[in-house]
Amino acid sequence: MQTLDVINSVTELSDTRVTGKTVVIIDVLRATSVMVTALSYGAKKVIPVLSKEEAFSYRNNHPEELVILAGERNADPIEGFDMGNSPVELIPGKIDSATLVMTTTNGTRTIRKADTASELYVASFLNAKATADVLGSTKELVLIASGTDGLYSVEDVLCAGYLISLLKQMNQNFHLSDAAIAALNLYESNMAHFPGITTEGRHYNILKKKGKNADLQFCFLKDKFPVVCQQKEGAIVKI
Amino acid sequence: MQTLDVINSVTELSDTRVTGKTVVIIDVLRATSVMVTALSYGAKKVIPVLSKEEAFSYRNNHPEELVILAGERNADPIEGFDMGNSPVELIPGKIDSATLVMTTTNGTRTIRKADTASELYVASFLNAKATADVLGSTKELVLIASGTDGLYSVEDVLCAGYLISLLKQMNQNFHLSDAAIAALNLYESNMAHFPGITTEGRHYNILKKKGKNADLQFCFLKDKFPVVCQQKEGAIVKI
Repeated sequence: MQTLDVINSVTELSDTRVTGKTVVIIDVLRATSVMVTALSYGAKKVIPVLSKEEAFSYRNNHPEELVILAGERNADPIEGFDMGNSPVELIPGKIDSATLVMTTTNGTRTIRKADTASELYVASFLNAKATADVLGSTKELVLIASGTDGLYSVEDVLCAGYLISLLKQMNQNFHLSDAAIAALNLYESNMAHFPGITTEGRHYNILKKKGKNADLQFCFLKDKFPVVCQQKEGAIVKI
Repeated sequence: MQTLDVINSVTELSDTRVTGKTVVIIDVLRATSVMVTALSYGAKKVIPVLSKEEAFSYRNNHPEELVILAGERNADPIEGFDMGNSPVELIPGKIDSATLVMTTTNGTRTIRKADTASELYVASFLNAKATADVLGSTKELVLIASGTDGLYSVEDVLCAGYLISLLKQMNQNFHLSDAAIAALNLYESNMAHFPGITTEGRHYNILKKKGKNADLQFCFLKDKFPVVCQQKEGAIVKI
């Protein structure tokens, strides 16, 4: 039997839930949306790091690579970094073969905490279909909605629900956990007016108040990029 | 501003989320449904305990009280106990002034873990309306969906959503967290065919396979009892 579970926030994430399983990390606003966009636009790899010091250190230790430092703290730019945590700052053709070193709070923390998984994918609405296409034969699949500040964030669970809905359309026969049933219900009950109740969510409104409307529009585009992103030897790469 | 949060399982429950706040513990299948029913039928108080030893010890130490021991382990009866963990085993008039000592895994654990709350209520579908009626002026309200074995359980979040929907009907102006927005969405998208997707849930189907259909029917009756249940000095009582 194939099983499909959803972890509703990084707080719930424990080794028991992910060890030896296939996990998909989702942080729609905006870490995994940035990663997917960067790899789709030609970046060679994405290195998630936890601190800006770790990011600077990566650049210093890899003079042979074109390193782009991306990230922000409380939506403010970080001094010495090349860009913020925004997919619309990325320009196709300008990051060919680059290494994007990203420091974000939620997405990166989740990726690190899930490292006992047997396979780790990174997804967002932007590449949901392409990702679902490679997950069909997975035995134990766990979609991880990163959340915000350790809390449930509705846009991430909505994206998990979208992935489940795509797998269902492919006639996949996963046994859904209760959290997966609820995520699918969340997506299906909001798909007619997508992204639905997400526009009432906390993180969505924080970004809206900061004028990040272009990001909000971009991050909810479904299946813009036919790219599958997976962690290999500590880096997220396109497979 | 009044705030309303939902905790999706006991795993998420931390002091930060509940200390000094008003909490409502929900364990539809079946701990809080039993508690609400017992108090409605005339029991004086409910004492939640974690082990059967603690239950026997309570009876030994309170010879002056009519003590009824209730609970089960993996849906099997406990030797020396008076009843299982089932609301349909309770008979009005037979438990007048009794003390119901209950040992259940999920509900009891949640109650103990939330004891830094300023006020602690116990609710289920059976007394949702009565409970919502006393929560209208709460400043920081946290609905705790106990879950099953530490995991998200859809019937508990559905009940949280029902409570939020009742508060909304009363024109209460709570600011909803993302988890609260999702719980309300879960209820509203299933209310026309209530209990909706709960019938696909894990705990629901475990009880169904064990032939507990009468319990399942009973636990999803909305607002059968106009009783409010609150913890006072270590016991759950009717207020």
